[in-house]
Amino acid sequence: MVDCGEATQLQLKRYHLKAQKIKNIFISHLHGDHYLGLMGLLSTMHLMGRKTPLKLYGPKGLMEIITLQLKYSDTVLNYDITFTEIDTETHQCIHEDPQVEVYTIPLDHRIPCSGFLFKEKPKKFRIVKDNLPENLEISKIQALKNGQDVLNENGEIELDHRFYTKPPRKSFSYAYCSDTKYNESIIPIIQGSDMLYHESTFLDEHMDRASNTYHSTAREAATIAKKANVGQLLLGHFSVRYKALEPLQEEARSVFENAHIAEEGKEFILHD
Amino acid sequence: MVDCGEATQLQLKRYHLKAQKIKNIFISHLHGDHYLGLMGLLSTMHLMGRKTPLKLYGPKGLMEIITLQLKYSDTVLNYDITFTEIDTETHQCIHEDPQVEVYTIPLDHRIPCSGFLFKEKPKKFRIVKDNLPENLEISKIQALKNGQDVLNENGEIELDHRFYTKPPRKSFSYAYCSDTKYNESIIPIIQGSDMLYHESTFLDEHMDRASNTYHSTAREAATIAKKANVGQLLLGHFSVRYKALEPLQEEARSVFENAHIAEEGKEFILHD
Repeated sequence: MVDCGEATQLQLKRYHLKAQKIKNIFISHLHGDHYLGLMGLLSTMHLMGRKTPLKLYGPKGLMEIITLQLKYSDTVLNYDITFTEIDTETHQCIHEDPQVEVYTIPLDHRIPCSGFLFKEKPKKFRIVKDNLPENLEISKIQALKNGQDVLNENGEIELDHRFYTKPPRKSFSYAYCSDTKYNESIIPIIQGSDMLYHESTFLDEHMDRASNTYHSTAREAATIAKKANVGQLLLGHFSVRYKALEPLQEEARSVFENAHIAEEGKEFILHD
Repeated sequence: MVDCGEATQLQLKRYHLKAQKIKNIFISHLHGDHYLGLMGLLSTMHLMGRKTPLKLYGPKGLMEIITLQLKYSDTVLNYDITFTEIDTETHQCIHEDPQVEVYTIPLDHRIPCSGFLFKEKPKKFRIVKDNLPENLEISKIQALKNGQDVLNENGEIELDHRFYTKPPRKSFSYAYCSDTKYNESIIPIIQGSDMLYHESTFLDEHMDRASNTYHSTAREAATIAKKANVGQLLLGHFSVRYKALEPLQEEARSVFENAHIAEEGKEFILHD
């Protein structure tokens, strides 16, 4: 989960997502709309009997706030939280598991704020079952999945992986840039990402307001997307002054065609 | 406002209630379902430009939690909060304004917890306009509204308030007892209240569970209502284990007839 505003639990329920399946939570910064739902979510996980440890990533202060609230509610969670305090000034890998690496993206906001870059690791070669000899040893299947040929005792190729496997599926990357001013220093970090979420609080006509409040306009978000040559751009975090969102999308598309409003509940799927 | 769980802002919106009209917020205790919506509400009031001071009443720790969150979001609210820390062990008057007095009700919960008794002050006598002489001085009208006769220079009755006014409307009282075990010591405090909200987390068949978690059963809530001779009883805070709520209401009604489920969004109106 990335950021956790108030009433996130209601949204999880609405979209039939199970809180207990969440293993990692990444919080970009400590403005309320990005983390005020966290304490309630952690409590619910506790009340529902969670035992599975949770990894939590966020800026300085997040764990202090949670700890204080647990103290006054006299609660000892029945699962462990491993908290990683993010240095919001540097780009670094903060999380790694068998599928994904997560990197920070230093953003330029009114308070310390970090985006997150999710990079899928290279995937396994895909076995072509019809071609596979029967009862092949698991070690040989593993070798093929890793893109290696299987050799016989004489060091000759016994199974050529090009015949027994198809190349791995593409590994995708997703960059999440929550609240930030227009900031070109993120471009090398997110370069070539398949999908970029970039805040787009204002229209370009309110550029002064955007700059003063450390936010971006739709055109600025699209400019970052274009310069970083990403696959597609999702726009969000719109000022409540805009009743209609089409103008924000249109403004972005005038710079970067594959731009979309990140509508609540809408799924954007990355695929080959 | 009394207690402020997560997503209270959404509920205010749903029922067309204006956050900016709230002048006083009373928090009974620091379990999440009673206060996690407060920080977001305070932030929204700020972002909407509130200048009107707010009075906040709650147990030790509440202001510390808010202050810490304001610190990390680097926010200085543009309105003042006057915080009154509640002593949850003693029954005392914590708030008074021209209409209402508010008293604490010490409750017996797992952490420090206080209910609130709202007592309307005596109301003014109601002027009978048809009987009133034209162009009567305001001071004389005020005297009549206070239930006083207006005297002439000789100390004789010029205007008998019984002719010019009707008696005041009844002053109502409402007792709110959030999370508590069955606790007879609250009875003298809430004695004769027109309306009592009392938690009713469990059915009597789960009385052990109620006692262990410092909660009450529907029968216990009704017993308190009966012994305190209140006008009507509202039941709430039901365990999620109960899909149907009628059995809770029925159990309460077997002890105290005028008992009702405090359904979300339902209005209960006190009137003569």
